Amino acid sequence: MKAIVTATVFVLFWFTCVSDGKRNVLVLLGDDVGFQFGCYGNQKIRSPHVDALAKRSLLFKNGFTSVSSCSPSRSVVLTGLPVHQNGQYGLAHDVHHFQSFDEVQSLPLILASHGIRTGLIGKKHVKPDTVYKFEVEVTEEEYSINQVGRNITFMKEHVRDFLEASRNDTRPFMLYIGIHDIHRCDTGGKLGDFCEKFGDGTSPGTGVIPDWKPEVYTPEDVEVPYFLPDTPATRQDLANMYKTYSRFDQGVGLFLRELENAGFADDTLVLFTSDNGIPFPLAKTNLYDPGQGEPFMISSPYQRDTWGKTTELMASTMDILPTILDWFQIQYPKYSLNGQAVQLTGKSLLKALAPNPGPAFDLVFSSHVFHEVTMYYPMRVIRTMGMKLIHNLNYRAPYPMATDLYLNPTFLDILNRTESGETLPWITTLDKYYFRDEWQLFNLTSDPYEQMNMADAPEYHDVITSMQTTLNAWLVETDDTWRCLPAGELEGNTCYPLYNGGKKGMGRNK
Amino acid sequence: MKAIVTATVFVLFWFTCVSDGKRNVLVLLGDDVGFQFGCYGNQKIRSPHVDALAKRSLLFKNGFTSVSSCSPSRSVVLTGLPVHQNGQYGLAHDVHHFQSFDEVQSLPLILASHGIRTGLIGKKHVKPDTVYKFEVEVTEEEYSINQVGRNITFMKEHVRDFLEASRNDTRPFMLYIGIHDIHRCDTGGKLGDFCEKFGDGTSPGTGVIPDWKPEVYTPEDVEVPYFLPDTPATRQDLANMYKTYSRFDQGVGLFLRELENAGFADDTLVLFTSDNGIPFPLAKTNLYDPGQGEPFMISSPYQRDTWGKTTELMASTMDILPTILDWFQIQYPKYSLNGQAVQLTGKSLLKALAPNPGPAFDLVFSSHVFHEVTMYYPMRVIRTMGMKLIHNLNYRAPYPMATDLYLNPTFLDILNRTESGETLPWITTLDKYYFRDEWQLFNLTSDPYEQMNMADAPEYHDVITSMQTTLNAWLVETDDTWRCLPAGELEGNTCYPLYNGGKKGMGRNK
Repeated sequence: MKAIVTATVFVLFWFTCVSDGKRNVLVLLGDDVGFQFGCYGNQKIRSPHVDALAKRSLLFKNGFTSVSSCSPSRSVVLTGLPVHQNGQYGLAHDVHHFQSFDEVQSLPLILASHGIRTGLIGKKHVKPDTVYKFEVEVTEEEYSINQVGRNITFMKEHVRDFLEASRNDTRPFMLYIGIHDIHRCDTGGKLGDFCEKFGDGTSPGTGVIPDWKPEVYTPEDVEVPYFLPDTPATRQDLANMYKTYSRFDQGVGLFLRELENAGFADDTLVLFTSDNGIPFPLAKTNLYDPGQGEPFMISSPYQRDTWGKTTELMASTMDILPTILDWFQIQYPKYSLNGQAVQLTGKSLLKALAPNPGPAFDLVFSSHVFHEVTMYYPMRVIRTMGMKLIHNLNYRAPYPMATDLYLNPTFLDILNRTESGETLPWITTLDKYYFRDEWQLFNLTSDPYEQMNMADAPEYHDVITSMQTTLNAWLVETDDTWRCLPAGELEGNTCYPLYNGGKKGMGRNK
Repeated sequence: MKAIVTATVFVLFWFTCVSDGKRNVLVLLGDDVGFQFGCYGNQKIRSPHVDALAKRSLLFKNGFTSVSSCSPSRSVVLTGLPVHQNGQYGLAHDVHHFQSFDEVQSLPLILASHGIRTGLIGKKHVKPDTVYKFEVEVTEEEYSINQVGRNITFMKEHVRDFLEASRNDTRPFMLYIGIHDIHRCDTGGKLGDFCEKFGDGTSPGTGVIPDWKPEVYTPEDVEVPYFLPDTPATRQDLANMYKTYSRFDQGVGLFLRELENAGFADDTLVLFTSDNGIPFPLAKTNLYDPGQGEPFMISSPYQRDTWGKTTELMASTMDILPTILDWFQIQYPKYSLNGQAVQLTGKSLLKALAPNPGPAFDLVFSSHVFHEVTMYYPMRVIRTMGMKLIHNLNYRAPYPMATDLYLNPTFLDILNRTESGETLPWITTLDKYYFRDEWQLFNLTSDPYEQMNMADAPEYHDVITSMQTTLNAWLVETDDTWRCLPAGELEGNTCYPLYNGGKKGMGRNK
């Protein structure tokens, strides 16, 4: 009884506090954005605005996405639940047609029920609307995706409108800005592979974005990341991407200035990350580090001692919802999905701002099912600082290709060089890229590029067993429907062996 | 202009006709029901009511489902579109969570917009509600599935209510009855593997269905179909299924009697079929003939000369919507899905009741993507009277097992016999069952059990090429997102080759 009274007093106190407008949240989410920033060590790119944010943030050197695919990743940000639990198994738009379970309690719904004003400006890309309902929405459902996601002047004005309305509102706010850059461009080449000509003021017929001063790069003027072939095609592709990064970077600067101009800079928690890896092989849709790793920053006006610092602590996009609830001191609601009580398995990143954050920062999980609906390739991943274990459930099939990861200069160059037998200075081959072992275990200390699978190495037997156990416990806790596959069939809570236990006559079932 | 005037006159005439109440439709849809009926040549089963319906129907010896899976199949019945076009790629319930596109024009929506009363009694199992909206619904969404789908007395009363209300309604009606028998039972064994004890009056605690007089069978008293092992386990499994068939059969009799008592027998078109094959290996979820073939009857009060006859003409569940629209003389609406205009590719079965039905009755197509969401195994099929071609897109993976197809006496017996090396009198092996070639071509005349894949046989080169061309044309016409896989990537309307055209370094990519 005493505990209940205490809690009530505490909640009342806290609401008083919040109604002063002292705690808001701004989420800045990039689209296919990677580590091409000065603050992440890139020597070639010019990213003054993101770098400035880093100077007032704690920067995670080990930030990760829960799933390297657009709609799925956004659903994790907005639910705190892995995709196998929230139902957004793949992309939401068009024929892909995936959407979360109707009963999911999303961040905007929870916040709204606690008197917090919510807004989404930019790319949304999750379904259904009833689950992902913000009070203010300026999204691709109403505007063209380029306008709402790449026209940083257009976006800035809507950010200003939202913030001005918040000044006249006693409620705190959570504003989520989904920048569509640096996603590849869907408009058939006219705007460039990365829409880098969209509004650049020099390409005829592509308009002008007044706030954007494009930074232009030559193919010599880029860093080719270790996981891409250093070829002219890739360098040109990256140079185009870099130009689009400048629009992203300047957008971040604009939006943060709006926050400051509106007087919210000193009471707003800013979270900065991206949905998935850059749109290149081994990155986007993959859960190798180039796909799983994300830039990740948290800027708290109340923990300025952490500003400009970096940390090795591991953060996940699954932590964003717990962080925001913690910031607002809101309890996650009690409810069930498909008959199982839902528990958050992420952690509040606010703990990373204080001493002794604890063992929750020593590992992250990822879970992927689809990107496009034609791309069935479930993966379950546990990553610690030193080791990564990937479980590929449909490993017999080739790794599937997203359309934007296929029809681009870098990948077509890889295809053509492979076919013609020309030199291909790449850390892998198409064959290895397509065909993966069921279990992949990498020692990230000795093998940071994830080249040597140690899953069958006797000296790693204890390591893999322990990681499998930890991974499986998480899959049970998050009610993963796929958790018995490919070796078994889930019925109730039991895995029944399939395929005769891999015995007689099951030659192809490794 | 003249054409428009003619059409208007015609429509007006037809509405006058329909408003006399002279044309109604009753659809009787079984669940996992196969050919275990006297009218289909089964010598052991007692099925007087279905046999009586056959005596007033044209019976199709070559009836087929478009997809051998519950929700997908029902979506095809109710949309006339294959699953890859209507979006109901797999099961609708729980974690599987598939549903048709919001824009789909379903049978009940089209009929309602033309002033026809629609009702659904029994199993529904398709989503979303806005697409599959009947005026009257008595389904598992309101009642337990066993009550609404297997308690034939309960169902009969709701059928009576619907028909009585129709007597007091000037509109014609379409009533769809989704009988849940003979689906396996989900309630953990207490009611038997086929819920054969549910309401049988002799099993304690399982209630009584007043209208059901159970027919009981011994294991000796069944016909083991060619595609199942003739073992004691299978025979007992079949005997239990036969008992459940008697509930199904008597339900059909009850509902038809209600139709007669209500005075609608002489103006109601009755369509009888099932969603997919019986719940045994090689049948349900498969598109071998035991999975693709369905009992199929059409009873027209206006074509009594066809009563009691059988036909070799090929019918598909995809034809049901065109048949019903033809019966009511309604045009299919003009609209698009995912940017492509929608055209029906099924045919009206009313043409089978008249002379010279035409070449549309010479072939059927099937299209499967998922059953459960964990069971990704897209298949595309073209079947003529003499040949069948199956394209397995995820052929490298083992054929996936549905939970009800795994945890049953017949399949566990197969598993155990395979493991122990005991005799297994089966037409295939587990290895062959699980691992299938990408292309499977069967000569159904010389090889009706689909045992010999002729896809690579030189003498069938022209046949397979021609069938592939016809199949592909249908996939383009129905806007199949999967149509380039596994060898290519669809972008716009073009298939781009994947995997380097199967050349260098692609050893595992057959």
